[in-house]
Amino acid sequence: MLWVTLREDPAEAEIKSHKLLLRAGYIRRIGSGLYAYLPLMWRVLQKVSQIVREEMNAIGAQECLLPQLQPAELWQESGRWDTYTKAEGIMFALEDRSGRLAGLGPTHEEVITAIARDMVRSYRQLPQCLYQIQTKFRDEIRPRFGLMRGREFIMKDAYSFHVDQASLKATYADMDRAYRHIFSRCGLKFRAVEADSGAIGGSGSQEFMVLADAGEDEVLYTEDGKYAANVEKAVSLPAEAIASPFDSYAKRDTPNTTTIEKLCKVLDCSPTVVLKQVLYEATYDNGQTILVLISIRGDQAVNEVKLQNELVKLATNYGGSALIGLKISDPEAQGKWAAQPLPTGYIAPDLGDDYIGKQKQLASKFLRLVDRTAVDLQNFVTGANESGFHVVGAKWGNQFELPPESQQVDIRTATVGDRAIHDPTQTLQSARGIEVGHIFQLGLKYSQAMNATYTAESGQEANPYMGCYGIGVSRLAQSAVEQSHDKDGIIWPVAIAPYHVIIVVPNITNAEQMAIAEQLYDQLTQAGIETLLDDRDERAGVKFKDADLVGIPFRVVTGRSIANGQVEIVDRATKETNNVAIETVVDHLQTAIKSKIQA
Amino acid sequence: MLWVTLREDPAEAEIKSHKLLLRAGYIRRIGSGLYAYLPLMWRVLQKVSQIVREEMNAIGAQECLLPQLQPAELWQESGRWDTYTKAEGIMFALEDRSGRLAGLGPTHEEVITAIARDMVRSYRQLPQCLYQIQTKFRDEIRPRFGLMRGREFIMKDAYSFHVDQASLKATYADMDRAYRHIFSRCGLKFRAVEADSGAIGGSGSQEFMVLADAGEDEVLYTEDGKYAANVEKAVSLPAEAIASPFDSYAKRDTPNTTTIEKLCKVLDCSPTVVLKQVLYEATYDNGQTILVLISIRGDQAVNEVKLQNELVKLATNYGGSALIGLKISDPEAQGKWAAQPLPTGYIAPDLGDDYIGKQKQLASKFLRLVDRTAVDLQNFVTGANESGFHVVGAKWGNQFELPPESQQVDIRTATVGDRAIHDPTQTLQSARGIEVGHIFQLGLKYSQAMNATYTAESGQEANPYMGCYGIGVSRLAQSAVEQSHDKDGIIWPVAIAPYHVIIVVPNITNAEQMAIAEQLYDQLTQAGIETLLDDRDERAGVKFKDADLVGIPFRVVTGRSIANGQVEIVDRATKETNNVAIETVVDHLQTAIKSKIQA
Repeated sequence: MLWVTLREDPAEAEIKSHKLLLRAGYIRRIGSGLYAYLPLMWRVLQKVSQIVREEMNAIGAQECLLPQLQPAELWQESGRWDTYTKAEGIMFALEDRSGRLAGLGPTHEEVITAIARDMVRSYRQLPQCLYQIQTKFRDEIRPRFGLMRGREFIMKDAYSFHVDQASLKATYADMDRAYRHIFSRCGLKFRAVEADSGAIGGSGSQEFMVLADAGEDEVLYTEDGKYAANVEKAVSLPAEAIASPFDSYAKRDTPNTTTIEKLCKVLDCSPTVVLKQVLYEATYDNGQTILVLISIRGDQAVNEVKLQNELVKLATNYGGSALIGLKISDPEAQGKWAAQPLPTGYIAPDLGDDYIGKQKQLASKFLRLVDRTAVDLQNFVTGANESGFHVVGAKWGNQFELPPESQQVDIRTATVGDRAIHDPTQTLQSARGIEVGHIFQLGLKYSQAMNATYTAESGQEANPYMGCYGIGVSRLAQSAVEQSHDKDGIIWPVAIAPYHVIIVVPNITNAEQMAIAEQLYDQLTQAGIETLLDDRDERAGVKFKDADLVGIPFRVVTGRSIANGQVEIVDRATKETNNVAIETVVDHLQTAIKSKIQA
Repeated sequence: MLWVTLREDPAEAEIKSHKLLLRAGYIRRIGSGLYAYLPLMWRVLQKVSQIVREEMNAIGAQECLLPQLQPAELWQESGRWDTYTKAEGIMFALEDRSGRLAGLGPTHEEVITAIARDMVRSYRQLPQCLYQIQTKFRDEIRPRFGLMRGREFIMKDAYSFHVDQASLKATYADMDRAYRHIFSRCGLKFRAVEADSGAIGGSGSQEFMVLADAGEDEVLYTEDGKYAANVEKAVSLPAEAIASPFDSYAKRDTPNTTTIEKLCKVLDCSPTVVLKQVLYEATYDNGQTILVLISIRGDQAVNEVKLQNELVKLATNYGGSALIGLKISDPEAQGKWAAQPLPTGYIAPDLGDDYIGKQKQLASKFLRLVDRTAVDLQNFVTGANESGFHVVGAKWGNQFELPPESQQVDIRTATVGDRAIHDPTQTLQSARGIEVGHIFQLGLKYSQAMNATYTAESGQEANPYMGCYGIGVSRLAQSAVEQSHDKDGIIWPVAIAPYHVIIVVPNITNAEQMAIAEQLYDQLTQAGIETLLDDRDERAGVKFKDADLVGIPFRVVTGRSIANGQVEIVDRATKETNNVAIETVVDHLQTAIKSKIQA
């Protein structure tokens, strides 16, 4: 076997699981975000895939394989080509020898919808659910953490088609159950959370998070177990606003108060009475740019994922369909469109539209959005549209016009300590997680956009409802390591370990040690126990260290105890050591392995 | 199951297997050369893959998975970037968001050599053999024939590393054996043939051809079984030259004889006494173009694969390392470099170099190559370098200078009817084949180019010898259909059929028919027999037709015979029909299936 371990932590790795997979000889980096899965890793991935496959088959999903190269036309039909290749830019695109554009699939809604459009003709063929286990591609801005955020990774993606929402919801519930089985069978501690549907779209979605401190995602949840959501999606009641100390409207001289902190110090008030303005530039896929002036309570932060979703809803107002750019308008950016310098740090909700210079493809008026937290503010403090000055004691309807209801939106970031909406006595807790699964109710988004129809029972043509369901197979494998390791190395959950047993021969020049090891290897293999025999010409200490590092659940040592007809069996997770009679080794291990694998 | 059959042959398909896979609902076209493998096809591909996997594991090869995206730097190290992205242009290339170039892997020599360079440090780790089963990409000029020449296809590729040629040859022989097992187990009629190593390089290679009339490759072989080669590579003795009727040198007026046929008619001689000139333009990777003037016997044709190999050998003479272009120099192309119009059709081997206009990056002299068949010509006919005139009775050494030995090369195309070299009483026969496997002894080409070394037993650094070994998994699956079908549809070899048995219920409203079908379905499935139950609400005739089309080896019909406690079992290949007692169906089918699968 090609197996090489490293003594030192590789410089390229930041988190523990990445270091361990490199050191223990599971993966090798070939380029930025590109890894070779070496034989040990491949076995782990095959085991995870097999568990996924069994649970998908159990709920009637059918395995297939779709092309990785996807013609641009399909993505233009769904309206996602620009978003994926330009705005987010996460799809690799290429031109073939005849000049046709194609993308490398990060996901397959377009392809599967094209297939359904072609093949599903009658309600009698529905529901259908297809899945594949496949390498996907993402042109990540910053690939990192090994298999966690690679540019090439293995996914299970499933897609379902339905005559109605009820059928979709039934399959969605089946998937939810199947996913819980999968993660449990893989030996993972995980949490299902409400999630944002992002660029995939649709009406509802749920993520499955493997809990680990190094997780890139923040999960907010309540102790009562009734609420858990990705911070991108989480909603909550913010801290209650403190009553404003300013009961009459006045303009105040407030030099050097361009931050909320400085302002509150100077005015001796709570940030909850401040109305702060944040200015964004958003660009739609038709090239139209709009300036978004957000009013939000001073202690709150804008959640860009929520903001993006609101802007997508408003896209048709600006003749666009997708958002391809969103950024804070900083002074440098302002220089490109402002007719005169903005009173940055002192902006009020009614900042004049005449600050916007006339430009083609630039909306001539601000889009004014107000976060729901700011709607109820009374006697608030805000900018005076004049550098160095604020106003206090302001009211919506008096000094400032409240934007219409369609522009009153939830775009704040929920944070730890916020009160839960379902029960305000519960406060949000925070945990880090690694997203390993995501299920979506897509609804009609793709079937309508791509004009996929079938003949309904009524005889009329209808668009099928769709769902899609992903699991990051390679990410899941690494997340198991992130969740389960110690100072000596990996501790694989038995169900996805590359081998069940490693037999270590302390001294390969000792014929008896070798003979017993080889005999046990044959017996274990015949009994269906996956066994690795470490007969390398290395010192015993090196081999023990490597066995700990590689994390195979049980180590059998044909050492001194063979004089008593015994071998030593070490449980990798607990380090518990037993001397076991050679003739009972197979039984002993069969029982031990069975007890650690969930059916 | 998502299963839709088509009544009509799809317009896009040219060959039988492509039509059948489309009609029977195995695949759907997503774009040029891009296919979705639907659930039935995926089962076939999984079976082929599993057979491949078992045979690879049996010879000690280890499964892994390498990235599909490959950094350009690796291909620049091996010197193949230009050949693959420009000359042949078969590698898709793209630029990532940070402007770095990458290719989509058509093959993995570079990646695996980089891994060996990193991980193989000592002779004690050798030999090693790794393989993967993976989707590969080729930007084909003309994708066609479905999975036969797609732009995305599934390959098994294996790579081995050795301390010496003997070890390489041993693994090469193991692979040869494993390949024969694989193709036999898949139920294919095939032939192993000598092959050209092409752009992969190396010292020896062998192809495995599935025999089928629609095959794109021509195989030349002898009846005695001692010789078989791809026509690209084949060598032979040409027909013997007829003695020249011209015993003295003379110039002849031969108007309108720009073809060999016309010339021979006018001069009343055999084409075997004519020395014909063919002019090529070749471009190396450094941009240097050379004009190649080939002299070959009039009845022979130039083999461009052999020519290309000779030109690669001569690359260093022109400061290049790879060939990125090769084409016949037609009058249009000549217009770009000729100092004066060429006497096309009347060119002699000594055509003056002053026909070549001075140009940067254009060699100022012809490269004169003479095919071995033309070296022995006596009193030959050839052009006079003057339009409308030939010379007869010419001799090398008298009127024309024979190019030096290094320019006397085998670049002729062997053809059916030629005499075999190993035994001139044997003549070459021709067959069409589909290349499904190719094994190569690469030698040191990649390990030297990429500076992969290990410490040899002697203590010195050495480059490992390498081999590489491919099987086209998706192509193999289609080739089985091309080889095995009849007018009604596919006849799958049992070992790779998507299911073993299809149960057809003629009338699903008949409760007894359905009950027996479902009972048999359960019994067969429990017995490990893969069974499909056709309970669609369709006429019996439609279902029988579909069963024939889809090609599952055994059809069980729960029709009228159930009144006698029997069902009808039809063997798809022979159309043999048996009425079998319901309680013996499982045994009957188990025996029948076993008898048709080679272990």
